Amino acid sequence: MEFHTYMQLIADDINILNPVVARAVKAREAGPIAEIAGRCAALGAAAIDVNPGPGSRDRRDTMSFCLQAVQAGTDLPVYLDSSEPDMLWQGIEQCAGQAVINGFSLEPAKVETILPLAVRHRLPVVGFLLRPNGHVPASAEERLQIASDLLDVSTRAGLDPADLIIDPVLAPLSWNDGTAQAASVLETIRMLPELCGTRVRTLVGLSNLTSGVKHPAAPMLEAMYLARLAEAGLSHALINMRRSQAVACARFCSVIDGNQPFSWAEFERYLT
Amino acid sequence: MEFHTYMQLIADDINILNPVVARAVKAREAGPIAEIAGRCAALGAAAIDVNPGPGSRDRRDTMSFCLQAVQAGTDLPVYLDSSEPDMLWQGIEQCAGQAVINGFSLEPAKVETILPLAVRHRLPVVGFLLRPNGHVPASAEERLQIASDLLDVSTRAGLDPADLIIDPVLAPLSWNDGTAQAASVLETIRMLPELCGTRVRTLVGLSNLTSGVKHPAAPMLEAMYLARLAEAGLSHALINMRRSQAVACARFCSVIDGNQPFSWAEFERYLT
Repeated sequence: MEFHTYMQLIADDINILNPVVARAVKAREAGPIAEIAGRCAALGAAAIDVNPGPGSRDRRDTMSFCLQAVQAGTDLPVYLDSSEPDMLWQGIEQCAGQAVINGFSLEPAKVETILPLAVRHRLPVVGFLLRPNGHVPASAEERLQIASDLLDVSTRAGLDPADLIIDPVLAPLSWNDGTAQAASVLETIRMLPELCGTRVRTLVGLSNLTSGVKHPAAPMLEAMYLARLAEAGLSHALINMRRSQAVACARFCSVIDGNQPFSWAEFERYLT
Repeated sequence: MEFHTYMQLIADDINILNPVVARAVKAREAGPIAEIAGRCAALGAAAIDVNPGPGSRDRRDTMSFCLQAVQAGTDLPVYLDSSEPDMLWQGIEQCAGQAVINGFSLEPAKVETILPLAVRHRLPVVGFLLRPNGHVPASAEERLQIASDLLDVSTRAGLDPADLIIDPVLAPLSWNDGTAQAASVLETIRMLPELCGTRVRTLVGLSNLTSGVKHPAAPMLEAMYLARLAEAGLSHALINMRRSQAVACARFCSVIDGNQPFSWAEFERYLT
């Protein structure tokens, strides 16, 4: 994967938690999923995350089906979002273009089953900065230590270090230490290039910030936090493309960081 | 002046371009100005910028009057915003609390008349990163060179380097190179600590970004750019406190950077 001068958007809209997607998956109707994927592409997404939820015994082909449906709507790269090696394997088989595995962590089962898939198929893979027991770290220092361990483990397994995309794991603001966690994620992204001795791909799932929250201020706070992530150097933001403020913010950041011409008309469409 | 862990807001509401202020100044009515100053304090401003416009022959005491009026509404520190040494002198005389001179640049007349006021009265002073001819620099490199020159000139004149507040001078997005200018200001703020060998106070006048623009998307773009300024390390933002999205954004940033508890109710008040 190449580096860009500005933050890329990965659409998280194809998620089993989206009722439209859930209905389409259940009925094996590709149309609604293809339509969402096409809309995300039109809004400027650089890739589509595909999260079909947990596999069930009787519907083993859910990832395959979702991939086919997405690819009927767009030829953008896809992020195969699952913790199940079987599902990831289906996705790799079915994928016509670039695939990214999303993802693994230091949890031993994931190091043993998911990382080797990335190595064998020479695919980029997202590495979550989680403790080996799957818990979220408490500080930027701990996140950076885990990043260093992840790099070690990946390199020893044979992964090209340029294929590791680091996700510092954003926690909800509603956690007791939610604001400290939000600060820690920003600090981690700022510090990672120094730790790695080079620029490094990073990914943050923005919706975690306001997870489960329906407050009308949530979309705006997400957009403001996204602006800080862009300034901290984030390379990939996983966002819901229906959140127009966040999409507008990312576009504004790409105009600034990509030295593109500015148009008021464009931002009025998003923001008013 | 002490350093804070998060960006401070300076209210730019007391400005002769605000019709309410202009009418009050003309009629020498302190009430409306005191009321605005009090409202800015209640919204969380850390200081009040006082910009009475150019002096006129028959109303030499305009800065004195404005200062008295502001101080009837709040005891916050004031930024004396004028390029006229006489006006600045009035402000210093009239000021009961902390004053900051706003400001000077490498323009020879300003180095000769405004900088000495700061040195003589041991006051912090804003230094604009402008060319000696008063023009806006073209790049971050040029801004950093000018910052180095400003530091030299100030130190030689006897200013405590900790009393220099650097303003990289934000240009309007509508300029031909507006987006490159916006990127350059962020880069300058990120790089200044390295140039100075220490943390350094910085100030940006946010309203410059959308200067003269009435588009409904302008307040939101200001807020998003402000989030990036906070992440870049800006210490002081000069903003209009009636721009509720920018105020909310600054408050959100202070919650994150100051490790303060988060409240949805607070942000709903600002953002909905």
